Amino acid sequence: MHRVVIVGGGFGGLQAALHLRRADVEITLVDRRNFHLFQPLAYQVATGALNPGEICYPLRAIFRGQENVRVVMGEVTGFDLDARELPVRTVLGEERFPYDTLIVGGGSKYNYFGHPEWQHVASELKSLEGALHIRSRILRSLEAAEVEEDPAQRAALLTFAVVGAGPTGVEMAGQIAEIARDTRRDFRLADTEKARVLLIEAGDRVLAAFPPRLSARAFRSLESLGVTPLVDRMVTDLDDESVLVRSGDGEERIPAKTIIWAAGVLAASIAGHLAAATGAKTDNVGRIVVEPDLTVEGHPEVIAIGDMVKVRSEPPYPGVAPVAMQMGRYAARLVRARLDGARAADFRYVDKGNLATIGRARAVADLKGLKLSGFFAWLMWLLIHLWYLIGFQNRLLVFLRWSISFFTHGRGARLITGDEHMP
Amino acid sequence: MHRVVIVGGGFGGLQAALHLRRADVEITLVDRRNFHLFQPLAYQVATGALNPGEICYPLRAIFRGQENVRVVMGEVTGFDLDARELPVRTVLGEERFPYDTLIVGGGSKYNYFGHPEWQHVASELKSLEGALHIRSRILRSLEAAEVEEDPAQRAALLTFAVVGAGPTGVEMAGQIAEIARDTRRDFRLADTEKARVLLIEAGDRVLAAFPPRLSARAFRSLESLGVTPLVDRMVTDLDDESVLVRSGDGEERIPAKTIIWAAGVLAASIAGHLAAATGAKTDNVGRIVVEPDLTVEGHPEVIAIGDMVKVRSEPPYPGVAPVAMQMGRYAARLVRARLDGARAADFRYVDKGNLATIGRARAVADLKGLKLSGFFAWLMWLLIHLWYLIGFQNRLLVFLRWSISFFTHGRGARLITGDEHMP
Repeated sequence: MHRVVIVGGGFGGLQAALHLRRADVEITLVDRRNFHLFQPLAYQVATGALNPGEICYPLRAIFRGQENVRVVMGEVTGFDLDARELPVRTVLGEERFPYDTLIVGGGSKYNYFGHPEWQHVASELKSLEGALHIRSRILRSLEAAEVEEDPAQRAALLTFAVVGAGPTGVEMAGQIAEIARDTRRDFRLADTEKARVLLIEAGDRVLAAFPPRLSARAFRSLESLGVTPLVDRMVTDLDDESVLVRSGDGEERIPAKTIIWAAGVLAASIAGHLAAATGAKTDNVGRIVVEPDLTVEGHPEVIAIGDMVKVRSEPPYPGVAPVAMQMGRYAARLVRARLDGARAADFRYVDKGNLATIGRARAVADLKGLKLSGFFAWLMWLLIHLWYLIGFQNRLLVFLRWSISFFTHGRGARLITGDEHMP
Repeated sequence: MHRVVIVGGGFGGLQAALHLRRADVEITLVDRRNFHLFQPLAYQVATGALNPGEICYPLRAIFRGQENVRVVMGEVTGFDLDARELPVRTVLGEERFPYDTLIVGGGSKYNYFGHPEWQHVASELKSLEGALHIRSRILRSLEAAEVEEDPAQRAALLTFAVVGAGPTGVEMAGQIAEIARDTRRDFRLADTEKARVLLIEAGDRVLAAFPPRLSARAFRSLESLGVTPLVDRMVTDLDDESVLVRSGDGEERIPAKTIIWAAGVLAASIAGHLAAATGAKTDNVGRIVVEPDLTVEGHPEVIAIGDMVKVRSEPPYPGVAPVAMQMGRYAARLVRARLDGARAADFRYVDKGNLATIGRARAVADLKGLKLSGFFAWLMWLLIHLWYLIGFQNRLLVFLRWSISFFTHGRGARLITGDEHMP
């Protein structure tokens, strides 16, 4: 039996495994976590609108009915391409998984531009833990503002800086502005309506992947929500008290106790390890350069997919779920074609458009010439995200929770957990 | 304005604050956490059936509309009874809150019978973190069983020992047996149907607070779910590999990788600190002995409520939510009566009966002579627990999630989170 080992239970790995359902293969899916994270909604966990269980789904539950998949929780520790075995550290220790085809979808991480120490202060949203950490930081700042008596300190506690105005940064900034407004009656001393939400962007507009007209709409929507978008500004330093911002006019240090990082993306380090093992090249953000059929040069049995991949001869694809899903499905098609002794055409990305939400009932959409903003764009965003949320149960619960939140402005998952609840 | 400081946002403190809604008082509610935990359902989080946000509710959201309550997140560091000030460590540092009436409801914790080191191995269910820790342990054991090849080790990984057969222990054991059965199709190698769930009880029957006939019914229900109740057995030692059990026949060491503690309860340490500060006595489980009107002897301005309280001249009350809620309401009544210059009658506990659930559609109920078991007892349990869950949103979502779980046997919140996901 042909053995397929898939690394990563993200959007790409999941699609690869699901589309090998009827193939005559034995699949081993390896992930560090026991669940799939619906990462586009992680910011909703970070702001207490959704529970972790509503955007995460156990991998074992996803593949319960697919008998040819075995799920293994563990971390890849290297590559043994000669023996065609993948070494994995599982809960019990080092194990080796032999394969005939290896599919690697390791994803990406945020780029702190050479300042890894910033990560301790400015959390990111790529993982569930990152989202829960941001939730604690935001809520703790509001709690502290309620007991702080010094006005300058209280203002710093009520200043939230989001770095990077891509879709994640815009969504995050919009949500924080809404929390501040929605919770104004929860606090007696802290005037959360006076909270400042700064959205700091090095480029000259927000949502640079969208047409300029939609960027301008998004800018105005953000302003009307109470967000202050600061474009053409670079973050040059930050600590747990403030952020240093450079613009054409010079440098300014802005006191802000809560900083959230959503700027720039690097391929996961596994891309570099795979490139080193195979002799493949990587590009300037660490993505492995692959052939037009997503295989690694000289290793037709190794397929790389998702955010960590740059296809030779193609411009880089955006690091979004549809790219990873299409690559995962392509990898499955390639395996099936080879088993049938057939050839598969090269991978082609079909761009269905771009969507970003800004806040309650506000979004922008750029879908093949159709440019929308406002309520209808938001409705489209809502339906698409619900549709792609895995599992019937989650979709229904998330829809219900959103409906309730929309009408009541409530945020039921506003919990400060972990060991950080007290200083 | 009369200042009331309430310590603890559990069932007692919450009722005290809510029933002072219309009183001419200024209330400060102090809790270490920013949320109320609906503790009777913590075991459902521990088994992945519910999300944390469905059994926790932000204190600020509860008191949003009650203008005379100020919520402070912080930990009580002592008592200054002469100055009538409560020192509290908040997120910003030490603060002091002056009061005219102090209401203390610190709750209880589990009793490891002089072995505090057992707590690191055998988690308990009093806190949200404890529940999440148990969830990780159970799920990690199942993950490890899926990769373990040694049959003896695999059997130990699939053995779950619950210590203490009170309502919490019984609910927990029943739920673990159900997880093992519900997830049998999620695993390829681990035969989770062969999981052993041991319920170890030092007394001679399970659910000792119920009439013997219902204990016998519960015993049979547990057995039919696949739980092995072991009565007349004392746990004399435990580590992360096994549990040592003593019975009339001698000692036996049972290999078990997952141990959950639900035996014996101690008053929270704040009860002892309050007793030391006021000169009040404590009983054998650390509860502070109070007057028939719940005030501390010699300190009519200090009222103690809930699990941490033993009323002089009364037999001890069970450590359940209805006792704490009645005491909280009584404390509010006492404050209101004093403000009106009136006297309040002594506290009297109205016992409405006892309910314990065992598994899907199984429960026992002992309600003032009405003794029920099976489906109708479970339905009653369901309705009562939904009714008391605070907040419309949670009640609806929990009901929906339960309905879905009931019909699909799904457990959507089966996530291994925290830093423990890898060895």
